Order: sequence, then C-alpha cells, then structure tokens
Amino acid sequence: MSVLIVGSTALDSIKTPKAANPKLLGGSASHAAVAASFFTDVNLVGVVGEDFPKKYTALYHRHGLDLAGLQVKPGKTFHWSGEYEVNMNRRRTLATELGVFETFSPDLPEAYCATPFVLLANIAPALQSHVLDQMRRPRFIAADTMDLWLNIALKDLLRLIKRVDLFVLNDTEAHQLTEEDNVVAALPKLHKLGPKYVIIKKGEHGSILSGPNGLFVAPAFPLKKVVDPTGAGDSFVGGLMGYLAGSKGPVETNLRRAMIYGSVTASFCCEGFGLNCTTRTSRADIEKRVKQLLRMVAV
Amino acid sequence: MSVLIVGSTALDSIKTPKAANPKLLGGSASHAAVAASFFTDVNLVGVVGEDFPKKYTALYHRHGLDLAGLQVKPGKTFHWSGEYEVNMNRRRTLATELGVFETFSPDLPEAYCATPFVLLANIAPALQSHVLDQMRRPRFIAADTMDLWLNIALKDLLRLIKRVDLFVLNDTEAHQLTEEDNVVAALPKLHKLGPKYVIIKKGEHGSILSGPNGLFVAPAFPLKKVVDPTGAGDSFVGGLMGYLAGSKGPVETNLRRAMIYGSVTASFCCEGFGLNCTTRTSRADIEKRVKQLLRMVAV
Repeated sequence: MSVLIVGSTALDSIKTPKAANPKLLGGSASHAAVAASFFTDVNLVGVVGEDFPKKYTALYHRHGLDLAGLQVKPGKTFHWSGEYEVNMNRRRTLATELGVFETFSPDLPEAYCATPFVLLANIAPALQSHVLDQMRRPRFIAADTMDLWLNIALKDLLRLIKRVDLFVLNDTEAHQLTEEDNVVAALPKLHKLGPKYVIIKKGEHGSILSGPNGLFVAPAFPLKKVVDPTGAGDSFVGGLMGYLAGSKGPVETNLRRAMIYGSVTASFCCEGFGLNCTTRTSRADIEKRVKQLLRMVAV
Repeated sequence: MSVLIVGSTALDSIKTPKAANPKLLGGSASHAAVAASFFTDVNLVGVVGEDFPKKYTALYHRHGLDLAGLQVKPGKTFHWSGEYEVNMNRRRTLATELGVFETFSPDLPEAYCATPFVLLANIAPALQSHVLDQMRRPRFIAADTMDLWLNIALKDLLRLIKRVDLFVLNDTEAHQLTEEDNVVAALPKLHKLGPKYVIIKKGEHGSILSGPNGLFVAPAFPLKKVVDPTGAGDSFVGGLMGYLAGSKGPVETNLRRAMIYGSVTASFCCEGFGLNCTTRTSRADIEKRVKQLLRMVAV
C-alpha cells in the first residue's frame, strides 16, 4: 500500500570546520519520503519556490515519488543554514528563511485523500491536522514533531496527537512534554495524550516503542563515522512508515521489524551530507545492513 | 564452575536531597560478588578493617560467598561518601578514606589459585595484576576499571589489559583511552591493546560487546525509577561473569546471554541504595526480568 508524507521541503546549507555544503536538498518530508521510497509508493505533500533546483525535482522522480501534491509557488524555497562544531555533535542554526513556507496550506490532490498510510513528518501541527482533515479513513497515521512546536504551538500539537495512531518524538521532547526525566516513566504519560503507539528516538542510542504488546528496545545501526546527522530522525520514521505500508499483515506484527528498517535507513542518512548518501543507497544495501543489525541483537 | 572476584570492599555513605544513607555495604567486589552469587560459587578477595559491621559479613555469608580471601586488618574499612543532586543523575564525592585499603596486597589462599573464572573488578591495576600472577591457568579472565586509573596508573593498566580475555569499561573511559568520540571507532583500538573481547558500558543505554563474532548490542533493562546507580556497572560485570562461570559450554556461546543476565542484575542494583535491593532479589526474580527483557528485544 502507499504512504502519504507531508512535511518541509527545504534547502539546507550545512557548514562544517572542513567544508561548506550550500543548498543541499533537505527538510523533513524530503528525508522521510526518500527513505520510504525504498519500500513503497510515496505521495509527497509540500511546497517549494520557483528557485527550487531542477536536479532536486529529478532526484524526487528518480525515487519514484508522486509529486502531484508538491506545490510550486512564486518566491523562495524554505532555507535553513547551520554550522557544526569540530566533533559534529553540536550544531547551531545560522539562519532560517521561511520563503514560500510562510503561507503554505497543504491542500491535497483528490487522488491522495484515500492513501492508507499517512506520515505527518515534522511541520507545524496545525498543518499536520489540516492534512488529516482531508483524509478519508486512513488505515494508520503517524506524526513526528520537534521542540519548536512544543514551545510555540503546544495546544495545536496536543489536539493533533489525539488523532494519530503513532506519535514519534525524541527523548528531550519527551522530557519537555511530560516533565519526566526518565524515558520509561514518560511513556504512560504520552499514551494518555491519545496515541496507541509511542516511539521515543534516542539518536545513536536507538529508540524505544511502547504499545499494546509492551516495550520494544530497538538499536541504532552502529556507525564508525557520522558525517551529518541532519534528517536522521526523519529518515528513521520515513523508512519505518514505508516498510509498514509496503508489508502485508497487521501493523502490530510488522512494527518492530519496521523500526529496524527505519534505523538502517537512518544510518545511511548519517553517512553523508543532506541526502547525498541516502540517494546512493539501494534496497539491497538496506537488506544487507538489516541482516547485520539483526545479527547484532540476536541473543 | 566457580569465579574468583577481587576488588574493593567498602562502606559507602550516600546522601540524597531526601535522605542520608550512612555506611552502606559497597565497593566493586561487594557489588560484583553478590551479583555473581545468583549463578555460581564465588571466591571473594578483598580487605576490610576491624570496624566492618558483622551484619555485612552475615550478608556475604547469606549469599554463599567464600570469604577465605577476605582479609580483616587492624584499622578502618575503606569509606567513600558522596552526594546526589535532585534528579539523581549527578553525584559528587565528598570524601574518600582509604583505611586498610592503602596497604592492601591481595594474596590468595592456595585453594583460590585454580579458580577457572577470574573477575578483576575495579581496583588499582597493579593489584589486579598481582592477583593474576598467582592464578594457575584460569579459563577466562575479565577486568573492569575506572577513570581514576586511566589518570594515575595508565602504564599499569595497559600492562594488565594485555593479559585479559575481556576488558570492560564505560563510554567515557573508552573515549579517554582511545581519543575516539565514537564508540564503534574506539573498539578496534581497544582490541589492539590485547583483549579478545571488549564491552563498553553505556549506563541506561545498555552496552556493546565486540569480539570474534562481531558486535552485540545489549539493552539495559528499562526502569521507571532509578534510586541509586552506585555499583550498577559492578553488578553488571558480576552478573555477567557469574552467569558465564555457572553455564555449560564455551564462553563464546554464552557471552551474549551473560550480558542480558548482567543487565538484569544491574537493574535490581539501581532500584535501591547500595545493595539493599540486590540482596532482596532471588534467582527467580532475575529469570522473570530476563524473560521480559528478551521479549523487549525480540524482532
């Protein structure tokens, strides 16, 4: 089955001590959609400006994304620029230029409204809700978020969370939202906000799923070198939802394996700037790493 | 088979914002030996002063520890005191009084010298080596350490590591020793120092084993509340070595499962001050949590 993915479609300028990488393809929807494309058909929803490079549209096409929901508007594409410190563990934002994103309203093409799987990748929760309003009884809905929305749009976010099956957030956001330092103690509080499934992402330390079948502790794929973690969380949830949508059988049965596929897809994302490494990856590369990761957790 | 465990046998005074816990039983050997005692016979090597409370000797006896190697010397037992901050994540040392530990020489009773499994729990590396010098061809040797020895006894430590099968350290110590921020990149450098197996402990994020069969990513047991993490690392390695020594078959085959048992034993340690919770635990409690943890990592 196919998956609809809405989120940001951006240009990311990423500086490191050794190199400048201007205007790479980025944004939560770009990372999530490319990640999901290894496993199933993807309907992309986003907005870009007239300056959006043709090579990036070509990249979307190479990954077989349906672009009927990608609006092209007069003005500039959303642009984020940031700088990494020497050890690549910390980055700071240099500039955020919203461009056409400022007035974005994700109105879906009619053909998208019956997509069975929906991934509301990181974007303002009001826009995530607006997409849900247009969907006709989707089979499974997941939403990701970021600290920004907890700070400036908490009410919108809480309203959204009630409507989703799976809520994905990182450990820092979980602490902020529940006032619980402890991830395990935060989980029941997150379920009380509505979602049947909760996944807390812990970066290099993997992720933890909570649902009716209890907890699942998922590893990250151990990497010798992280080049650029930008988009890793989006790739994780994109790979996860792509795998779920592309698999037969109930979600409950496939969810643990989907997290393994998400971890592996995210590992490729971390090995290059922007989408550089992910786009050079094949389904066979992913399967190879999934096998390796399954061996690394087999008791 | 039995395991010999050498390390510190101490009294720990642990202050928290809510309570003072004076002179609890502590030290690396106490935690590791009690942890190992759930799985096999333990020969304890350590030193205490004449002030060592009888109730703690009784506690050792209740856990069936062989105390022929526990020296009782004139003077005071090693005493550490520390204080935790509100969220229990940080602690600072208030005082360290070495007492009889200052002149400790771990001379083994003749009957100990043929113990097949040896755990050199955290203690000065020169003392760990001195124990090894007295052993007759042990089957499997593991050594733990702490940052202090990297700072003040690095040469001794490097000399020791060459002689052990398994070297256990935490992520911070691995970074310090290899100058690698990345755990995965640190592992080959640690193997070059000698040991066939390396385990890097990451606290609540679990641990990672590297050996001839590749990597094993082991989870920590997810806890809703951590009361006192003091001794968790010692309990982990104690439970691990106890399980290895108590199991049939080659170490290589049992090592992954041994880490699961180590994680679970350490989880009980974290749920009480000092050894309070560990000593109330039964083998059946451990087996129950092992089953739960195995379900949490099954894909």
